[in-house]
Amino acid sequence: MPHDLEGYRGSALKALISIGAEIGDAIRIKKSNGAIYEGILVPRFEYGDPEYIVLKLKNGYNIGLKVTDADVVEKLGEGSKLTYKAQPTPKTVSNLPKVSIIGTGGTIASRVDYRTGAVTPVFTADDIYSMVPELGEIADIETKVLFNIFSEDMTPKHWTKIAEEIASQFENNVQGIVVAHGTDTMGYTAAALSFALQNLPAPVILVGAQRSSDRPSSDAALNLICAVTAAIHAPFGEVAVAMHKNLSDNEVLIHRGTRVRKCHTSRRDAFKSINADPLGVVKNRVYHQISSSFKPRSSLNSFKIQPIFEEKAALVKYHPGFNPEIIEKLLDMGYRGIILEGTGLGHVGSVCIKAIERARDMGVFIGMTSQCIWGRVNMNVYYTGRDLQRAGVTPLEDMLAEIAVVKLMWVLAQTDNIEEIKRLMLTNIAGEFSHRISYRWSA
Amino acid sequence: MPHDLEGYRGSALKALISIGAEIGDAIRIKKSNGAIYEGILVPRFEYGDPEYIVLKLKNGYNIGLKVTDADVVEKLGEGSKLTYKAQPTPKTVSNLPKVSIIGTGGTIASRVDYRTGAVTPVFTADDIYSMVPELGEIADIETKVLFNIFSEDMTPKHWTKIAEEIASQFENNVQGIVVAHGTDTMGYTAAALSFALQNLPAPVILVGAQRSSDRPSSDAALNLICAVTAAIHAPFGEVAVAMHKNLSDNEVLIHRGTRVRKCHTSRRDAFKSINADPLGVVKNRVYHQISSSFKPRSSLNSFKIQPIFEEKAALVKYHPGFNPEIIEKLLDMGYRGIILEGTGLGHVGSVCIKAIERARDMGVFIGMTSQCIWGRVNMNVYYTGRDLQRAGVTPLEDMLAEIAVVKLMWVLAQTDNIEEIKRLMLTNIAGEFSHRISYRWSA
Repeated sequence: MPHDLEGYRGSALKALISIGAEIGDAIRIKKSNGAIYEGILVPRFEYGDPEYIVLKLKNGYNIGLKVTDADVVEKLGEGSKLTYKAQPTPKTVSNLPKVSIIGTGGTIASRVDYRTGAVTPVFTADDIYSMVPELGEIADIETKVLFNIFSEDMTPKHWTKIAEEIASQFENNVQGIVVAHGTDTMGYTAAALSFALQNLPAPVILVGAQRSSDRPSSDAALNLICAVTAAIHAPFGEVAVAMHKNLSDNEVLIHRGTRVRKCHTSRRDAFKSINADPLGVVKNRVYHQISSSFKPRSSLNSFKIQPIFEEKAALVKYHPGFNPEIIEKLLDMGYRGIILEGTGLGHVGSVCIKAIERARDMGVFIGMTSQCIWGRVNMNVYYTGRDLQRAGVTPLEDMLAEIAVVKLMWVLAQTDNIEEIKRLMLTNIAGEFSHRISYRWSA
Repeated sequence: MPHDLEGYRGSALKALISIGAEIGDAIRIKKSNGAIYEGILVPRFEYGDPEYIVLKLKNGYNIGLKVTDADVVEKLGEGSKLTYKAQPTPKTVSNLPKVSIIGTGGTIASRVDYRTGAVTPVFTADDIYSMVPELGEIADIETKVLFNIFSEDMTPKHWTKIAEEIASQFENNVQGIVVAHGTDTMGYTAAALSFALQNLPAPVILVGAQRSSDRPSSDAALNLICAVTAAIHAPFGEVAVAMHKNLSDNEVLIHRGTRVRKCHTSRRDAFKSINADPLGVVKNRVYHQISSSFKPRSSLNSFKIQPIFEEKAALVKYHPGFNPEIIEKLLDMGYRGIILEGTGLGHVGSVCIKAIERARDMGVFIGMTSQCIWGRVNMNVYYTGRDLQRAGVTPLEDMLAEIAVVKLMWVLAQTDNIEEIKRLMLTNIAGEFSHRISYRWSA
């Protein structure tokens, strides 16, 4: 394969070679049905159907065109530099609802420069209108690039900065706020913001993409449009995550920030609400509420921010052969709290009892969640569970392990008192657990 | 509620109080349709429909009977001790296929004594015939209680004992082997046996129950019948797990031991095959193969056992705020391998690079899996993944984190050579990963 026709195969590759085309050239495709498409030839990253050629159209969108012998492929010009021309932004007085988009990095906020290979952030308002021109019809967008990092490098200190930026955006009388975020740790950040920001005057919608906006199968545009739609129209004052509902490009679920988890490494519908219904869904640019239980938008003056997190909280996953000395090491390192991701209804081997008792005696919080993910812990069924509770373990209902460790970081930043820590961990702050069994489980 | 009518409510409680009944009494219920049931009144643990009374019938089964005003409830006798009368076992020459059942503990192997509250193992052949009389029609059962522990207390040393017991049972010319196991760590044990036992002459089917056989909604009987059916009829020589397919009591899935995970704390259909199809399904006492890819039964003389595991292998789950010093501590403790449960496609924060490089320089294996659970790691998409690989991380395809740590314990017991460790971790030993994307994902 010629280096400059990266990703192409089969009949598409043959057609491109026959006209001497290279990535970056301007191409015209006349389909046998009379339709004509002109655009810049972009490389293909996904190894899908080899009969498709992907062009970046003038409106910034990529289109995948199936090319058969009946179609005509022409080269219009060589090596046009790939530029993303900004659409003229309607900067006159707008009656559209105002939405802030805060960029933090991740696939959704980046675009590959095919000449240099570098990934660059695209987050000015002009860039976004260029990438998703429909947004200009539904909102008056203000954007801010807060930082541009891979989400696996996100830390509690970044959560603090995002929370503070959101608080300052609310001063601008926005109808809603969208946070563009890498998907890897988006669930953790959504939880952190859910605890840090209370009595929200408007929705805060985190949004990501599993494929960058340059790829023919990108989910970035739909996710972004639906996140902005939810930010404007959703009735809740909560933090949520907007991602594809399934593999078709028509519905985006709005998941509660304390109930959501990335459950697939690559699929567009990777995010799932666990042990709870999603808050809502956006379909055909309309927001529909799903869960009847939500916090409504508050007034701006009741809005509260508590954006500090204690990093001396660990998540420890139990498995057969687990060495309780690992718990002891955490105690020696000055950890103030540990979330155990136990088995089944919330168990760890009895070999761990001694280390847990030491934690209790040191005033270190130990909470129990389940590695099953779905369901709730119940440490009263077997005597081993009761033994663990006597040793000092607090069962955390149906809270996800990942959410529990974020909540613990937030709780530990507020108090040193172990009884108060336990009380807060078992207080439902932002819908992170329920007392009754009311979840859905897709078999 | 009287202490001795534990769990009863509503109309059932009223009817029982009116005749002065207590748990353990012999009761007769005449239904308005003429049917008559006699049995011992057992306590209810599940808070379901308050109109049901649960009786243990003479055949050992529990039955839940809806009681309305038109039915007659009578007390036959007081405080009959709850005994589980063994059915006469057909100990004469049997033409039925021979199946060994090995008891290790867990809910399926236990029965509550309602007088003392103690949980006792039930695993003699007579007890099993008494609990599930249908088994007598399909197999000639030999049983062995190997131990009786809660499965969260299962360790690699127990895996070794189970593997050795299975090997010795194969000497008895059995058609298949069933291992009764607690559900909490059944997936880990299934994986351990999958690596330890190779070229199996017959299926090894692990089976558990989410509710003990005393409870009206117990899944123990159906799971056990289907496990024995699969042990006799399945064409594969592999280790598998037999558990309910859904909430109705008619199908049991047979999951490959290296692809299965407990995904719900309490539901009967908690076990799911991840990133792979189940091996088969048992329906109406008939085994149906689902996956076309399996290892057939081998001859007994090609059977191999390698039942040793190295416990200095850890599973470390990454999260924002994760402290790489935890990796350093594991290195200081002499750990020889670490499975990282990273985010998304297989990432941990760049803050971990230094500790990972130290591990590499010490000859410690570091493997990457994803906390997403579904999907596969791909550390070539972003430069951060490539950086981690350069630092010494081995991406482990679509292997589950829990399975990867079990495999690592098995691999480390065989060799000290880091290149050989890497080679074995990336060799498909027992269907634990696939190179192509061939999994199912239920949305």
